[in-house]
Amino acid sequence: MRVSFIGLGAIGYPMAGHLPKRHQTVVWNRTASRAQQHAKEHGSQMAKTLEETADAEIIFTCLPTSAEVAEIVDKLKPKLRRGALWVDCTSGDPTASREIASQLQTLGVAFLDAPVSGGVPGAINGQLTVMVGGDENALEQVRPALECFAAKIVRVGDVGAGHTVKAISNTLMAVNVWASSEGLVTLAQQGVDLSLALDAINASSGRSNATERLLPSPLLKREFPPRFKLALLAKDVKIATSLTRASGISSPVFALISELLNASKATLGTEADYLEIVKAIERWSGINDA
Amino acid sequence: MRVSFIGLGAIGYPMAGHLPKRHQTVVWNRTASRAQQHAKEHGSQMAKTLEETADAEIIFTCLPTSAEVAEIVDKLKPKLRRGALWVDCTSGDPTASREIASQLQTLGVAFLDAPVSGGVPGAINGQLTVMVGGDENALEQVRPALECFAAKIVRVGDVGAGHTVKAISNTLMAVNVWASSEGLVTLAQQGVDLSLALDAINASSGRSNATERLLPSPLLKREFPPRFKLALLAKDVKIATSLTRASGISSPVFALISELLNASKATLGTEADYLEIVKAIERWSGINDA
Amino acid sequence: MRVSFIGLGAIGYPMAGHLPKRHQTVVWNRTASRAQQHAKEHGSQMAKTLEETADAEIIFTCLPTSAEVAEIVDKLKPKLRRGALWVDCTSGDPTASREIASQLQTLGVAFLDAPVSGGVPGAINGQLTVMVGGDENALEQVRPALECFAAKIVRVGDVGAGHTVKAISNTLMAVNVWASSEGLVTLAQQGVDLSLALDAINASSGRSNATERLLPSPLLKREFPPRFKLALLAKDVKIATSLTRASGISSPVFALISELLNASKATLGTEADYLEIVKAIERWSGINDA
Amino acid sequence: MRVSFIGLGAIGYPMAGHLPKRHQTVVWNRTASRAQQHAKEHGSQMAKTLEETADAEIIFTCLPTSAEVAEIVDKLKPKLRRGALWVDCTSGDPTASREIASQLQTLGVAFLDAPVSGGVPGAINGQLTVMVGGDENALEQVRPALECFAAKIVRVGDVGAGHTVKAISNTLMAVNVWASSEGLVTLAQQGVDLSLALDAINASSGRSNATERLLPSPLLKREFPPRFKLALLAKDVKIATSLTRASGISSPVFALISELLNASKATLGTEADYLEIVKAIERWSGINDA
Repeated sequence: MRVSFIGLGAIGYPMAGHLPKRHQTVVWNRTASRAQQHAKEHGSQMAKTLEETADAEIIFTCLPTSAEVAEIVDKLKPKLRRGALWVDCTSGDPTASREIASQLQTLGVAFLDAPVSGGVPGAINGQLTVMVGGDENALEQVRPALECFAAKIVRVGDVGAGHTVKAISNTLMAVNVWASSEGLVTLAQQGVDLSLALDAINASSGRSNATERLLPSPLLKREFPPRFKLALLAKDVKIATSLTRASGISSPVFALISELLNASKATLGTEADYLEIVKAIERWSGINDA
Repeated sequence: MRVSFIGLGAIGYPMAGHLPKRHQTVVWNRTASRAQQHAKEHGSQMAKTLEETADAEIIFTCLPTSAEVAEIVDKLKPKLRRGALWVDCTSGDPTASREIASQLQTLGVAFLDAPVSGGVPGAINGQLTVMVGGDENALEQVRPALECFAAKIVRVGDVGAGHTVKAISNTLMAVNVWASSEGLVTLAQQGVDLSLALDAINASSGRSNATERLLPSPLLKREFPPRFKLALLAKDVKIATSLTRASGISSPVFALISELLNASKATLGTEADYLEIVKAIERWSGINDA
Repeated sequence: MRVSFIGLGAIGYPMAGHLPKRHQTVVWNRTASRAQQHAKEHGSQMAKTLEETADAEIIFTCLPTSAEVAEIVDKLKPKLRRGALWVDCTSGDPTASREIASQLQTLGVAFLDAPVSGGVPGAINGQLTVMVGGDENALEQVRPALECFAAKIVRVGDVGAGHTVKAISNTLMAVNVWASSEGLVTLAQQGVDLSLALDAINASSGRSNATERLLPSPLLKREFPPRFKLALLAKDVKIATSLTRASGISSPVFALISELLNASKATLGTEADYLEIVKAIERWSGINDA
Repeated sequence: MRVSFIGLGAIGYPMAGHLPKRHQTVVWNRTASRAQQHAKEHGSQMAKTLEETADAEIIFTCLPTSAEVAEIVDKLKPKLRRGALWVDCTSGDPTASREIASQLQTLGVAFLDAPVSGGVPGAINGQLTVMVGGDENALEQVRPALECFAAKIVRVGDVGAGHTVKAISNTLMAVNVWASSEGLVTLAQQGVDLSLALDAINASSGRSNATERLLPSPLLKREFPPRFKLALLAKDVKIATSLTRASGISSPVFALISELLNASKATLGTEADYLEIVKAIERWSGINDA
């Protein structure tokens, strides 16, 4: 198939790297040098202009927020093929996605929201999980492309459902990371060895992806390489709290985590990684960075 | 070895059931009929009086709170063997445990706090995790007894450390269950199929023991058999928040979950199971029980 | 002047009662019998149809939410006089108000948001405070009408500013009432006489309108006559939290109070008065109603 | 009467300044120079040693926390007159006070907890409010001394009740200041003039001592002279949350404000004034100090 991939960020770049093996792949990125490098490294074809990406059976977007997706859709709309499929892998906003989908539908273009989980390693290894919202037939058509980078594809409902589940899942991750950090900083302050504590917790009912995979290395080594920006996680959580507000669901924990992420973002700076929230907890506890 | 086991509750009963195969085991329970049944079912020996349990190399306690442990210690103190070992499997309070340990030490009795995780199934299968606080040599002496019901034994520090790690671990479980319930109730309200959502989340970064093991069955089947009382979980979380307060660690999530557990306990009643908190969330959202 | 007053609720009815003394006043209410009674009691003129209210120099609305205002504006738009002034005394939503104002502007009708504070007693005595958003000249034109029921009129900015300040003020009231109730229930539990405690607090730095005026009578007499629906207060707080979210202001206290009002609304029922939140606090503390 | 006054801090110094007009007054302070200055300025007599203060009918303490009071009581115990009265004006801990009172009782010395409200201006003008816990007769004996600096004296219960009410009152102040700051920063961000907004709020139901007296000057002038340390307010709130925890009262707002004060204390530094919390809110909102 002829596919386009728009947005070669930390996740998008390796995701798109799996496509050229099986599909004719055109890539585009705001900073063109990254697309150039992708063509070289992965055998994709760099689009000279954004408009070139419109001529494809499948168009992937993988962008920071739904606002950038809407902007790109607007620009490409006049040139899209009737019958094309738009697959948005952004961790986007379901309300915005439903609006985009209805615009594309009038052009005969199906929209699927298809956010991914698994981080940079999952993208590199082609082991991502994809949560899909949208038409079943459309999903069947794009499945061969999705399978290039996904180990698991779950259709969770109609358009918007993918973004909805992803926003909730990332909020759970945020809660798990924050609560685990509160707990582990307390254990450290109580003189408990963290690697023993993690060993025990991870064989106990309090375990989560946060205690099993995400936190051990940064906490034990005190290294926080950039993985996923706290600012992007805060955006995902804001999408989730918009959903809880709109649904009228009692959600004090979601409401609090949203406030905490925003305050820690302002405390740690816009470039901070999400696992650095342990530093915000330490600072607010009067513990100075080593 | 000659061991005593005091407290044949939901967890203690099956735990103690593994001991008679390898050790001479005397059991005691406030409601004597349960001890009688244990003797029949597992070949233990029922103590006719609490005092009979004092004559042992190892004394296990597995009680609701440290207050009951302190009471029993008080009663048995005059009769304990010098050189005996007291292993407290209660999900107890580290401050109380340190006080008990120092009293026992004057009698030449070592105290280990050794709370367990794994629930009733783990206790039945002898697959519990034990978090141990206390002297290393003492642990080596009791290890053959612990191994009867434990798949994993982690010494996390000195006396109190076991109870500390257990309180934190249970608080993380409480947070994970609560946040996941907020998220899943929201997804249901948004019309997302919960079994698909759980399938996606459990292959994503938001997964935890709560989404993987604890919540699927009760949420999907709407069945809440008694597993672990919400009131006991609230007690564990109160121990954890006492630790965060004493350590001066910023812990807004722990503080909130403590309030939420107390309010949901009052809403659902003292006999409620901890997984019924989803019902409190639904009620506070104006969703009536089916 | 010829004025219309739409919405004869608990506050609107007595507010509109001051107008006929100085202005020719047409009133309308969804339940017509209330308008009929108003005509009899206060000498206003009952509109036979909603459309009759359109023929006025000033049109007042005093409705539950901005949604009802928008609906009425829609119906009256074709019949409004050019140069008329629309004064919305609803505790409304600033975003909705700006949208309504811009629609009316194209018809040559100025819109002022003019929510009031002071409750039913303030409305009866003509001692309300009015927070006005909108054009200064427009305000000067309606001032003679506002002065019929207001002791204080403050122009706080352009269209929407009145509703913004009112939403924040009501949220502060909600926080003060909630926190004071937590404190007073605790004092009662500690055996402190509440009337002595209030006497001391009201001469101390912790005093607020909640401790000085709102809470003493309901708490000391355990009487909760209907004053202002908890459900409407929850709506006002939701407007305020939409503002804090949109402004990116760190507001954990506002976020929490919004959750608490929603949960207490579900606990106490849709007809509950806002001062009954003390009963929610008591219930969540395991204290049963007397 | 012969009175001693121990602790010449920001509040204690001017309080003690009113006593020498009517009573023979001995003063003591950890930093002796302050006592020397007091003697010069107010005609009190400086104690050369702490022990000298023991020989009095009434001993006042006005110290940072109950820990310092307990320390001084310990030192003076051997020298106290039988029948003396100890009046503790510290914002103390009721549990500690009950313990101190019972120790003093065995020496025939009555203890009253008598914390004050009104700040430095109230202390200078002799217009403080005193919340008294303890025996009625003892209060009658010390009333002539209290009246030197108090405009209002309320006996709120037995020993500890004064400290209890004071802790709750200060927590309400903290909540009112915090919530009002969240609201006012939001209004500023929305472009509303703060002095107009305060004018409207203070004529509305959202008003409190925070909006009427405490916040206008620091917020409008951006001046934060030292009034009362945030660290001391955080200590008072911790006393209050210990009470809510011990009483089992649902208190999510108190729990949150305690966390927020601690985090803002760590953010702003140990010397920060409590009204500077608006700066913490601004910082956590990404608004930089002017």
